[in-house]
Amino acid sequence: MITFADIEAAAEVLRPVAHRTPLLSSRTFNHLTGNEVYFKAENLQRIGAFKFRGAYNKIHSLTETERSRGVIAHSSGNHAQGVALAARLHGLKAVVVMPHNSVAMKVEATKGYGAEVVPCEDSTDDREKVTAELIEKHGYTLIHPYDDPKLIAGQGTAGAEIFHDLKDLDYLFAPVGGGGLISGCAVAVRNLYPSVKVIGVETEGADDAYRSFRAGRIVKIPEAVTIADGMRTLSVGTLNFEIMKKYVDDVITIPDSAIFPMMRFFSARMKIVVEPTGAVAPAAVMTAALGIQGKRIAAVISGGNVDPETLKKALSA
Amino acid sequence: MITFADIEAAAEVLRPVAHRTPLLSSRTFNHLTGNEVYFKAENLQRIGAFKFRGAYNKIHSLTETERSRGVIAHSSGNHAQGVALAARLHGLKAVVVMPHNSVAMKVEATKGYGAEVVPCEDSTDDREKVTAELIEKHGYTLIHPYDDPKLIAGQGTAGAEIFHDLKDLDYLFAPVGGGGLISGCAVAVRNLYPSVKVIGVETEGADDAYRSFRAGRIVKIPEAVTIADGMRTLSVGTLNFEIMKKYVDDVITIPDSAIFPMMRFFSARMKIVVEPTGAVAPAAVMTAALGIQGKRIAAVISGGNVDPETLKKALSA
Repeated sequence: MITFADIEAAAEVLRPVAHRTPLLSSRTFNHLTGNEVYFKAENLQRIGAFKFRGAYNKIHSLTETERSRGVIAHSSGNHAQGVALAARLHGLKAVVVMPHNSVAMKVEATKGYGAEVVPCEDSTDDREKVTAELIEKHGYTLIHPYDDPKLIAGQGTAGAEIFHDLKDLDYLFAPVGGGGLISGCAVAVRNLYPSVKVIGVETEGADDAYRSFRAGRIVKIPEAVTIADGMRTLSVGTLNFEIMKKYVDDVITIPDSAIFPMMRFFSARMKIVVEPTGAVAPAAVMTAALGIQGKRIAAVISGGNVDPETLKKALSA
Repeated sequence: MITFADIEAAAEVLRPVAHRTPLLSSRTFNHLTGNEVYFKAENLQRIGAFKFRGAYNKIHSLTETERSRGVIAHSSGNHAQGVALAARLHGLKAVVVMPHNSVAMKVEATKGYGAEVVPCEDSTDDREKVTAELIEKHGYTLIHPYDDPKLIAGQGTAGAEIFHDLKDLDYLFAPVGGGGLISGCAVAVRNLYPSVKVIGVETEGADDAYRSFRAGRIVKIPEAVTIADGMRTLSVGTLNFEIMKKYVDDVITIPDSAIFPMMRFFSARMKIVVEPTGAVAPAAVMTAALGIQGKRIAAVISGGNVDPETLKKALSA
């Protein structure tokens, strides 16, 4: 289990390199939903997503021997970019195993940050197999996308910043993929303010955390069908689930159909670009998923790395 | 001529109601252009553009009698929204004369802020004629879109904020329509830091200020053909030009073809939505219009109110 001290230590590591992203608000959104809502704009983070935080904190913790061998990650997107940039900033080699169905701009950006991209089949099993073979052969250190204490502590710095900016808070809504973001943020805000309620949000087609939360054990779903590409993990991580059971109040789902309208609102009214996964937690607030009224809510926009074609579809919908 | 004290007074008026918009930067943009560039994100201002500043400051200065009669403006877009919202916040009636070719979302937003919208022909002459008739009939006070000292002082608060955030600055790039923004910002930054160079930017199809600057007198062009709809004024204002002659170092032009790539960069790399006119000053920096290297530059993003169809075209280009 990680502690708040781990998150404070990660914040020190990240201070010189990560953006302290703003909390954005919209009077129109507040009026529509009847709440006072603050969006943590991690789409404005380096690499366009919160993933930079955890990847940097993890890579920063490696030994000299590990650094000399280089790092490896498997990811369809933002974690790949986070590892690629964090490795470059540390002067290390990075290899990223990316499935064929990854968002094209995420693949290009990963290469742009200097990582070697190794393509694989779309299944999680193939990703892991290819990654294991490369580790066996080259001695790379795996940077896990969510199930790692240093990584979780890094993601948790986003939650600590939310709290430092707002002081008072009734609810925190965060998206759940593998559980890295929500577990880190939950440790941060519950330590800072024990009465805050932490709500994880998934899409209906990728509801493994929702099921796990109800079953009281990690449930792996056979496939994840959703436009929220950052949410296509089939199960949450072990450490993530342990933290979620302790600090997360509920996990809820929204339909994919709520995502494009939320992206359109962000574009038209708030002038920001948000990727489908980044719109999931805000969409839960927009659609009044929990019937909350008159509360002070923070919702994490996890990222903004959306292909132009998908963004155009969202604008047309 | 307005003074820096007028801008300081406007800043006090605006403090409780306007957003203090952030200065955004992009390592990639800096690397591409060889400068240290800061974007003043007035697309994140209320109503999605700097125009709220001037309209609010002007309406705030009206007498009780003027307030009781209501205000009127003619505008194809952002000034309309600025006046509509500023009037609503003051509890006044607002009428806005808008040409048929106005951007649809700007018309809708103006109505949304509670203004009465009166359509007119696309020509500036017809706008002014319809407006004059309504003033004659109802006694409304005209809120001019740029040629007004209170309005200029309000727009200048954006320049003052840039300076307060950056302290040191070599260049300020701002778009020029009627000249309200650049004249206000020029007064602000030149008073704060006399050696800063202030550069106005227009598109080639709306180059009246460029011509006026070279002629030493206000030149009116017969028509303005440009996708930058906020720049379709045919000449700058009298007071604006007087200030520009004193404080602006140069006015330059960029082709319309530089606008969509700049909007695409903002969307893909910086995750913000910028309207065509808002991309004009940044595009001048991007295309190295003045061959500047190694300088600290602020460029104003004047607004983000772009129709989804135009944004989709920009993303496709």
